[in-house]
Amino acid sequence: MPHADTPGHAEDGSPWAPLRDRQRERALKREAVLRTAARMFNEKGFHATSLDEVAERLNVTKPTLYYYVSSKDEILFECVRTGLEMVRAGIDEVARSGGTAADRLLACMRAYGRVVTMDFGACVIRVGEDPLPPHSRRELRRLKAEIDHEFRNLIASGVEDGSLAPCDPKVAAFAIAGALSWIGRWYRPDGPLDADEAIERCIAVLARGIVAAPSRRPRARRAPAATPARATRRNDR
Amino acid sequence: MPHADTPGHAEDGSPWAPLRDRQRERALKREAVLRTAARMFNEKGFHATSLDEVAERLNVTKPTLYYYVSSKDEILFECVRTGLEMVRAGIDEVARSGGTAADRLLACMRAYGRVVTMDFGACVIRVGEDPLPPHSRRELRRLKAEIDHEFRNLIASGVEDGSLAPCDPKVAAFAIAGALSWIGRWYRPDGPLDADEAIERCIAVLARGIVAAPSRRPRARRAPAATPARATRRNDR
Repeated sequence: MPHADTPGHAEDGSPWAPLRDRQRERALKREAVLRTAARMFNEKGFHATSLDEVAERLNVTKPTLYYYVSSKDEILFECVRTGLEMVRAGIDEVARSGGTAADRLLACMRAYGRVVTMDFGACVIRVGEDPLPPHSRRELRRLKAEIDHEFRNLIASGVEDGSLAPCDPKVAAFAIAGALSWIGRWYRPDGPLDADEAIERCIAVLARGIVAAPSRRPRARRAPAATPARATRRNDR
Repeated sequence: MPHADTPGHAEDGSPWAPLRDRQRERALKREAVLRTAARMFNEKGFHATSLDEVAERLNVTKPTLYYYVSSKDEILFECVRTGLEMVRAGIDEVARSGGTAADRLLACMRAYGRVVTMDFGACVIRVGEDPLPPHSRRELRRLKAEIDHEFRNLIASGVEDGSLAPCDPKVAAFAIAGALSWIGRWYRPDGPLDADEAIERCIAVLARGIVAAPSRRPRARRAPAATPARATRRNDR
């Protein structure tokens, strides 16, 4: 058994773990740094969170953090990128499923909703790319635009196949993204709703709309004033 | 004509304008400072905007700004407060109008949408209270919570009077706020839609929902996968 006690030699008896295990451990620790930072950014804001505090929460020193990440900006970039990649992975999975465009859109909405209730997804919504330098912002906005286009295309297909109501796909995609993203702001894991229930209730509102079906609608309680009446007509188109 | 040439004496011949005019001019200039800052915060972010740049855009020096505001934090606080007060004023106006709860909710949504396409309203959405110290954040969150409760109450009334579809008023209020607030992020005055059209299209999506009425819905193009099918059932409840 040659050089079993030589540091760096990946043999039985070496105090170092095999390279593959060390790489895996490094990746796990890097993810722990990113996730802890994402939680703290989400709780108290990006600018108000120092790397000293992130290190403290992980029971390590700041120099230890720098073994895994090079800067606070890199951490935020990776948190937002990871959140967006999670959304994209969810959309890709749905693309391989069947059903009408409406079925697939609802499944994508569910995937999007789930991601924004998790650490990296909430970081996309609560912090986002604004604090980052231009080249990082561009890269993250490109990812966001890709996700937006997936939603627009799915909506356009649904209007085409009749599974979705006629609408402006661009505005509808933004309305969906806004309503679902907002969950990432208001949802609290210790609140009365669990994440899936919050997402389902939000999607139910978006799917069928807030206004009662015409047959169920009551008469106005008194003569409506000019503005709301006109407003309702415009929305009933 | 006593002391006509004494500085500060508001008589004809004084080089100083009457006090009331000076107060009005000061208020106008203060509002110009706030509005210019709000635009710059919305364009490039709060932290990336310096008061030197705000002063430069107004063709004055930074010391001149300090005659109207005491700090960058005060500017942001006032921008967000003004945006939120504009929403509240819109809601108060609707409260005095007639119609069903649905009519009034749609009118409130329209008021909210209009505000978020304007400088101070967009600042509520794009920057918000997060960069501010705790006491300012609390004050602004109190205002936000008041607006949220107005929406929830209106939705609960609409479910009660049958003008709105059955829903969870809290989640529906958040879905509406999210979809409308998102306009403040994506809307560009130089884009293809004017603000009113963008708002109407977004409200149309929220009012009637994205899914086609059951009679219009097509059959799935192939046997739907397990998850989307179950998902659709849950949303059709």
